[in-house]
Amino acid sequence: MNRQSIGIIGGGGGMGSRFARFFAREGHPVRISERDSGIPLSELAAVCPVVVVAVPMHVTVDVIRRVGPHMRPGSLLMDLTSLKTEPVREMLAATRGEVVGCHPLFGPDEPDVSGQNVVLCPGRGEAGKAWLRETLERSGMRVVETTPERHDRIMAVVQTLTHLNTMLMGLALRAVGEDPEDLERMSTPTFRSKRRLTEKTFGDSARLYAELVARNPSAREMLEAHEDALAQLRGFVEEGDAEGLEALLRQNR
Amino acid sequence: MNRQSIGIIGGGGGMGSRFARFFAREGHPVRISERDSGIPLSELAAVCPVVVVAVPMHVTVDVIRRVGPHMRPGSLLMDLTSLKTEPVREMLAATRGEVVGCHPLFGPDEPDVSGQNVVLCPGRGEAGKAWLRETLERSGMRVVETTPERHDRIMAVVQTLTHLNTMLMGLALRAVGEDPEDLERMSTPTFRSKRRLTEKTFGDSARLYAELVARNPSAREMLEAHEDALAQLRGFVEEGDAEGLEALLRQNR
Repeated sequence: MNRQSIGIIGGGGGMGSRFARFFAREGHPVRISERDSGIPLSELAAVCPVVVVAVPMHVTVDVIRRVGPHMRPGSLLMDLTSLKTEPVREMLAATRGEVVGCHPLFGPDEPDVSGQNVVLCPGRGEAGKAWLRETLERSGMRVVETTPERHDRIMAVVQTLTHLNTMLMGLALRAVGEDPEDLERMSTPTFRSKRRLTEKTFGDSARLYAELVARNPSAREMLEAHEDALAQLRGFVEEGDAEGLEALLRQNR
Repeated sequence: MNRQSIGIIGGGGGMGSRFARFFAREGHPVRISERDSGIPLSELAAVCPVVVVAVPMHVTVDVIRRVGPHMRPGSLLMDLTSLKTEPVREMLAATRGEVVGCHPLFGPDEPDVSGQNVVLCPGRGEAGKAWLRETLERSGMRVVETTPERHDRIMAVVQTLTHLNTMLMGLALRAVGEDPEDLERMSTPTFRSKRRLTEKTFGDSARLYAELVARNPSAREMLEAHEDALAQLRGFVEEGDAEGLEALLRQNR
């Protein structure tokens, strides 16, 4: 399975173009299909033994249903979505060929993929998965295989809980309404680093972060974990009880 | 006011020893007083034209009251505490000499102080403050002068709100109770960076972070800002409404 053509649907987006460059550097001819340009999906599936769905989360299922039936026997259909249960189920239903769910655990701007984690959720077939794993590992990525359900549960913590926390910081900062210039002049390294994260989450990729929070099946539990945490802190804050608060923090180690 | 001896009370602690090294490098003889060792406070005040109070927040007022009356006329009493209203008021009451509140806005482990912010809250006298400002600026620190009240209000955001947010993340992580090894294997750079911050806040300096949160006069408002933020997010999470959540985030830009 070498030098095979890779078709990337959504190859103009952040992760799509990142993986287009990645596969091209690995020596594969890459074909791109975009919403308004590039090869039609049916043609892409006809000429590419590997098709990668790299579109935004909310259109992933639709794209899988449209491209799946055109896949050739023995070809590999894979996606790059941040949730895996629904895409893998839909890919298995849409094609009789091989299926792997793939989630690269880094952003498209990460300068070095070496040492970064990637999750694979095997769907159907061995050859495609083995080729993909080898290709990713060759460039230093750390590949973890797990089920779609386990992946989505871990992402409830790694992504949903994490981004919920950053959204809280950003919304609380807005509510407090302090002068940004004074905050900057009297900022600490920790404040600057957390504010940067807030700006990233509230910025150009706001839709992606909103999806990561709102669409995870455990989202409500992650919100409630924050509500419980706030309730735990309230008494110490109201009493100004630094000693009690310290004891609570140390329990956590 | 050059080559003057600097006395540091709590010179064995993180910030105390950091400033001991700093002043020594600037060419000043440095004398250290520690809880159980070093020069007694009365002697320190008698031989040092500058005395720096660098003890933990909850014993600062007590130390100021004990050392203040021994300060020589024309000498400078200053502190390094993270809140300024109470220490500056207490220093003004405890000595008739010069007084400056000082808050270095970086941790004792910060590799390079150049470009880091320091707040000065002038209390009494010009010569001591001018010398301190010049000494700090010579090593590249950015000095901001403000009132103790304004300082404490900005710290409510830069420290209290920020560390409250990190405590919420740590407590929520604990409540969710997912396997730490799976979280590590499937971690993103953002998750790792936020978890590192959590470990720092819940670690050896837990008492300091607890003080920064519990003792700020605006702490309750910072907690309530988080409660309001959670209430804003709840509906979008319950409905799985990524589009609505995106709109909320974008309002914030």
